[in-house]
Amino acid sequence: MSSSSSTVLSEKQVQQVDNLLTAKDDDHGGVIVEMTPEPLDSSIFVSLLRASLSHWRQQGKKGVWIKLPIELVNLVEPAVKEGFYYHHAEPKYLMLVHWIPNTVNTLPVNATHRVGIGAFVMNEKNELLVVQEKSGRFRGTGVWKLPTGVVDEGEDICDAAVREVKEETGVDTKFGEVLAFRQSHKSFFDKSDLFFVCMMHPLSFDIQKQESEIEAAQWMPLEEYAAQPFVQKHELLKYIADMCFVKKKGTYCGFSPVPTLAAFSDKKSYLYLNRQCLDSL
Amino acid sequence: MSSSSSTVLSEKQVQQVDNLLTAKDDDHGGVIVEMTPEPLDSSIFVSLLRASLSHWRQQGKKGVWIKLPIELVNLVEPAVKEGFYYHHAEPKYLMLVHWIPNTVNTLPVNATHRVGIGAFVMNEKNELLVVQEKSGRFRGTGVWKLPTGVVDEGEDICDAAVREVKEETGVDTKFGEVLAFRQSHKSFFDKSDLFFVCMMHPLSFDIQKQESEIEAAQWMPLEEYAAQPFVQKHELLKYIADMCFVKKKGTYCGFSPVPTLAAFSDKKSYLYLNRQCLDSL
Repeated sequence: MSSSSSTVLSEKQVQQVDNLLTAKDDDHGGVIVEMTPEPLDSSIFVSLLRASLSHWRQQGKKGVWIKLPIELVNLVEPAVKEGFYYHHAEPKYLMLVHWIPNTVNTLPVNATHRVGIGAFVMNEKNELLVVQEKSGRFRGTGVWKLPTGVVDEGEDICDAAVREVKEETGVDTKFGEVLAFRQSHKSFFDKSDLFFVCMMHPLSFDIQKQESEIEAAQWMPLEEYAAQPFVQKHELLKYIADMCFVKKKGTYCGFSPVPTLAAFSDKKSYLYLNRQCLDSL
Repeated sequence: MSSSSSTVLSEKQVQQVDNLLTAKDDDHGGVIVEMTPEPLDSSIFVSLLRASLSHWRQQGKKGVWIKLPIELVNLVEPAVKEGFYYHHAEPKYLMLVHWIPNTVNTLPVNATHRVGIGAFVMNEKNELLVVQEKSGRFRGTGVWKLPTGVVDEGEDICDAAVREVKEETGVDTKFGEVLAFRQSHKSFFDKSDLFFVCMMHPLSFDIQKQESEIEAAQWMPLEEYAAQPFVQKHELLKYIADMCFVKKKGTYCGFSPVPTLAAFSDKKSYLYLNRQCLDSL
């Protein structure tokens, strides 16, 4: 937004002069409005929004995104009354969207999955790094389990596994392979989960357990871990234990991370694949 | 909510009599309020909310969730003013949350990833099923690519791959293996993507392309697909093409889906693992 006036104008005055919201084009024929958290009266917002929608309609724009910081919660109701609906939200903002044309909306879907990791860390004595948790479903059950955790927004799976093992047990590790993954649904309201079982190579062995979340942590013989009734009884954990045995024999191939560049940008991203098989090419 | 009064009371009156919002306990020491989309005055809502918060505080509750249908957008601002913030949103509702205790909030994170699939479908003549898209970044580039698509909320990766191939090309397939997956970040605002390359076995061969999204579809010799300058130039696509060659030779092991029951429920979920290696146990 610019103004040729030599008078210094506040942001709000500039918006009123231009009578339009500041918007950037997106890659899909739409526009994105990122509102700054300065207070804005809802009636001024509505008149700016109406004028802007009319302008974008003339320009043939399709999707209109408005990112409203939580400080501007007073503008949520007016935006919805002008035909916007919720797309997604994070603690500090709400993303609203409106589809202008009379065609089927091709707006991208919201994130649908949370991603977690479980770490399989075995030392040279074939002992597995296991923990008992202070909270959650395993609390008080006496079950020894693999260290697990949630992948942070923007974090690589291979980095998350190293971080979680370090946080929960104090043990340093190097990422090895993804041994398997599980997809489950409706784990949190309507959202799904992807859980990656990761083999990690230990680089240190002294345990310093995390006080806040971990009741106990130890190196436990793989056989003892697998023999726990809870592990034997549950199909999923039984499979994981079986995989650990095959991995111990050295005959299991998982997926290793390979850094690659994305096709349309210079962003690095990891491709996880069966490196051993690929190298046979 | 119940009332022993013999007079018939409206829902709003009952709420006023009880002076509390209807809430269910969650599994983590918190409560969930699912508001019904009947109109509710914001001042009545605020008094119910304040009384309820005081009640939950006395009960030692931790996280308080309020699911507000978009029809009740008038209650968003009052809830935020009472200390709630956004957790997540879908087109028809906004989930607000508030953490009561003076401890670090252990609320689960929002979904962070969108999930997509690319389908590697090869016939007995070593021809690959490829498409040209009408929209998106590949539009007008002349690049032949694997059929791709987004996994719907609650949909299994293996089902999504079958559905997308059918929708885009009309070809029926049976899911084989996940050959690899890629994790990339900030693909859509701050959200990440997980993209699974899936090998599919064709069950039919006649192509009926999807009019709305697909410009062209054909069976193309694998060598011709891989020789496209765009594929050769981009690391990620080059890796995928290499994998296809190894798979063609029959020496690549991906991850196959195995149905399992979840540890704490009777919900079925798929575990994807290297079945060939596991069967060696």
